[in-house]
Amino acid sequence: MAAPGSSLLLLFLLLAAASSAAEANPITPGFPPLQLHALRHRRSTAKSSGGRYAVSAAVVTAAAAKPFTAHYFPQELDHFTFKPNSSAVFYQKYLVNDTFWRRSSGPIFVYTGNEGDIEWFATNTGFMFDIAPKFGALLVFIEHRFYGESKPFGNDSNSSVEKLGYLTSTQALADYAILITSLKQNLSVVASPVVVFGGSYGGMLASWFRLKYPHVAIGALASSAPILQFDYITPWSSFYDAVSQDYKSESVNCFSVIKAAWDLIDERGSTDAGLLQLSKTFRACKTVKSVYSFRNWLWTAFVYTAMVDYPTPANFLMNLPAYPIKEMCKIIDGFPTGADIVDKAFAAASLYYNYTGDQTCFELEDGSDPHGLNGWGWQACTEMVMPMTRSNESMFPPFTFTYEEKSDDCFQNYGVRPRPNWITTEYGGNKIDLVLKRFGSNIIFSNGMRDPWSRGGVLKNISSSIIAIVTEKGAHHLDFRSATKDDPGWVVEQRRQEVEIIKGWIDQYNEDIMSK
Amino acid sequence: MAAPGSSLLLLFLLLAAASSAAEANPITPGFPPLQLHALRHRRSTAKSSGGRYAVSAAVVTAAAAKPFTAHYFPQELDHFTFKPNSSAVFYQKYLVNDTFWRRSSGPIFVYTGNEGDIEWFATNTGFMFDIAPKFGALLVFIEHRFYGESKPFGNDSNSSVEKLGYLTSTQALADYAILITSLKQNLSVVASPVVVFGGSYGGMLASWFRLKYPHVAIGALASSAPILQFDYITPWSSFYDAVSQDYKSESVNCFSVIKAAWDLIDERGSTDAGLLQLSKTFRACKTVKSVYSFRNWLWTAFVYTAMVDYPTPANFLMNLPAYPIKEMCKIIDGFPTGADIVDKAFAAASLYYNYTGDQTCFELEDGSDPHGLNGWGWQACTEMVMPMTRSNESMFPPFTFTYEEKSDDCFQNYGVRPRPNWITTEYGGNKIDLVLKRFGSNIIFSNGMRDPWSRGGVLKNISSSIIAIVTEKGAHHLDFRSATKDDPGWVVEQRRQEVEIIKGWIDQYNEDIMSK
Repeated sequence: MAAPGSSLLLLFLLLAAASSAAEANPITPGFPPLQLHALRHRRSTAKSSGGRYAVSAAVVTAAAAKPFTAHYFPQELDHFTFKPNSSAVFYQKYLVNDTFWRRSSGPIFVYTGNEGDIEWFATNTGFMFDIAPKFGALLVFIEHRFYGESKPFGNDSNSSVEKLGYLTSTQALADYAILITSLKQNLSVVASPVVVFGGSYGGMLASWFRLKYPHVAIGALASSAPILQFDYITPWSSFYDAVSQDYKSESVNCFSVIKAAWDLIDERGSTDAGLLQLSKTFRACKTVKSVYSFRNWLWTAFVYTAMVDYPTPANFLMNLPAYPIKEMCKIIDGFPTGADIVDKAFAAASLYYNYTGDQTCFELEDGSDPHGLNGWGWQACTEMVMPMTRSNESMFPPFTFTYEEKSDDCFQNYGVRPRPNWITTEYGGNKIDLVLKRFGSNIIFSNGMRDPWSRGGVLKNISSSIIAIVTEKGAHHLDFRSATKDDPGWVVEQRRQEVEIIKGWIDQYNEDIMSK
Repeated sequence: MAAPGSSLLLLFLLLAAASSAAEANPITPGFPPLQLHALRHRRSTAKSSGGRYAVSAAVVTAAAAKPFTAHYFPQELDHFTFKPNSSAVFYQKYLVNDTFWRRSSGPIFVYTGNEGDIEWFATNTGFMFDIAPKFGALLVFIEHRFYGESKPFGNDSNSSVEKLGYLTSTQALADYAILITSLKQNLSVVASPVVVFGGSYGGMLASWFRLKYPHVAIGALASSAPILQFDYITPWSSFYDAVSQDYKSESVNCFSVIKAAWDLIDERGSTDAGLLQLSKTFRACKTVKSVYSFRNWLWTAFVYTAMVDYPTPANFLMNLPAYPIKEMCKIIDGFPTGADIVDKAFAAASLYYNYTGDQTCFELEDGSDPHGLNGWGWQACTEMVMPMTRSNESMFPPFTFTYEEKSDDCFQNYGVRPRPNWITTEYGGNKIDLVLKRFGSNIIFSNGMRDPWSRGGVLKNISSSIIAIVTEKGAHHLDFRSATKDDPGWVVEQRRQEVEIIKGWIDQYNEDIMSK
């Protein structure tokens, strides 16, 4: 059986997939089954007896082993209109850990949840738990509306445009502002400084939150936040060029083998006999019906592994060894001369799906409804339009992107058309250095250059307090993972810097308060 | 006939009125006919042959005498959701003057329209026309959605909660961001610096716009913007205390006469014979039916005159002499000993309604539908909840405010309940000095202390570039009025300072661009 993907990287999965969409799945261009597959396998959290509709701040005891308690906050459905429906309330889940909290002086560290179950993000953001004792911090993880248990219309939430319409980043940011403000009042710690943390899309939200709600958060640590992956700010080919560069940097042969595999698969999969043969090569549990399934399967392995090319063994998306790209390339380069290129590509990708060796066959085609509406698919078809192409220099088949096609695809799938300029109009991005040099403060943008999303991130300091921390060997929000004894010195140093900067924000805030 | 009020001060009219509402008009608490009256008389602008639904940037020639041309921009109805209705488009009016524009290097000065016809605001913001030549600036005045000609559902716009629901400040700010960004692209001046200007509610919008959209505007001049008149930031009695102080500062007798008038009117108006007599005293065109009409009439005169207590003759709301409060108090103090208090109050108030002497009688009761939904009434019942009370120290009858009563009134009148904490959650305000000392830049908050709204404004410098300019003798956005030969030196100096600061922003922006 194929191991499930995690929800944390749905963003990347979907976005990266979007550019291969038209070819990958002619039925649902832009949204290959991969995403639905990942969604379907998302861990479902049983609701406790406290119930979903508990009142604000009602504690619902989570399983004993979890380092947090779950709570549910009554949240307005629509913060920006006042129509009858906008006063509808849904219950937004948030997690709290007060183990290390010094109520009298400690800050509040808030994770601004992204596209998935908040427990998953909390579990994979060990950094916040690691640093909480030093700060005496209260930890809060807020689930993004329409994900996990925070679905305004329950299981029907994704069933129609009328309902999904309320799933936007601006509504999510307002949710966070209201929840944090209310929580501080309820806890009688109105003056406590709040620092927001987020990774990936959650990192985008964290940085935007600091920019839009400086009166709620004194600073933001935005890890691997590709806030510049919109419009024409970042070259459209950068993502796939970066993935390719990751492989090429390990071995030119590795890069060349993968680059050559796509056409071969197309060629061999053009007949039923060929599909049967390829199914055997790929150890498919069932005979594969579309040649695109092989391509998607490989594509997922190579792209995701680039994102999670961590320097230590990790089990984030999949169980993987340290520096998994290096290991994949070792597999490819270790084949004898003249070995088949598709065999090599399959073997390398198997590292991603089956590092532990417990998979006897692979599910290459997912049976879930390709027309199902899913949260991130919706977001990518409304606000989060990140144009991506694949250049001839990449190891992937060339692909072009046009806003027109994207718009038509989205209209066909969701009944809405994207607003491609909205994100940069609402949050900025163009000439960000010029704008934020004279405006705003206290944001860390951290990026690891092994992560292809880094290319859409802020990679240079903008001002004395809007800082870029870049690690050449880092991957997708590596800094947010729990410290391990095997962490290289540069990761340790990166996290130390982040702690020092955040401490500076809090000290300054406290000084400002005292001097009033 | 009573002269019409202008739309510019609807905000003040309504808000100030709100606290006297419960007593003033038991049928429509919170929304006495005054506002509707003012609305009804708003100047209607004939649509030109270009038509309302002209495409973006289509020029519709305004009457030859007007120093601007009218244009209409297709604007999304709902920027923050993606429901089917949200892609509906309405046409937003904006005015352009390019007489002084140096296209190659000139900035763009944008007025962020408030609650009324944009032509009215443009006509009453002579300051922008006065300074445009010095800067070589393009002038743009954008009409606020749901006002003037920018009604998304035409004349039906205010007919239901479903339609009015889209009338919020956040939607308005997004309108401005989108229109400005698009206009700059259409004019091929993407790099031109934009400075936003606004007075009163428009000033609140201007300052919030700079805070929320720093990538669109490099700075804001917010004149008489009571952004701190929310929650518990500014004492609730401050507005009426300030009005009263204006009168007391001229003459304690003047203050005492007005203070004593209210009870006398109540007493005399308690019988039909009394109402008839009072109607004669007040030179009513028709016999007045409710004693509250007399009170409202006086209340309007005394409150509005405090706001427009300008140092030179002006015809903003009404035709008035220089320092009209001083003139009103001269009238009161000029009565012989033992004269009737109500006669004195009436005579003083007549200055407001009939300075030119061409009114032979006054319309004290307006016949318009008190249940009609009007734009600002809606806004004051949703987001713009500014609590106001009248203390015993004021010259007005005591009045208390509770959020519960306000909420019930709004529900009864509009079918919605206000969100009293929304403005401070969305835009901040609490401890604004602490927050903006470390965040943001390039905002001027100007206030004249004769204007009772000044008490809810920012009256102290926050940082080196978030500046408060306060004039002791200034009134409601006096700085925005056209310069006249009679302007006192302190107004001239205030405007000079504002120009100098704005020039500094533009110079810095140009230096930043050059050094890149």
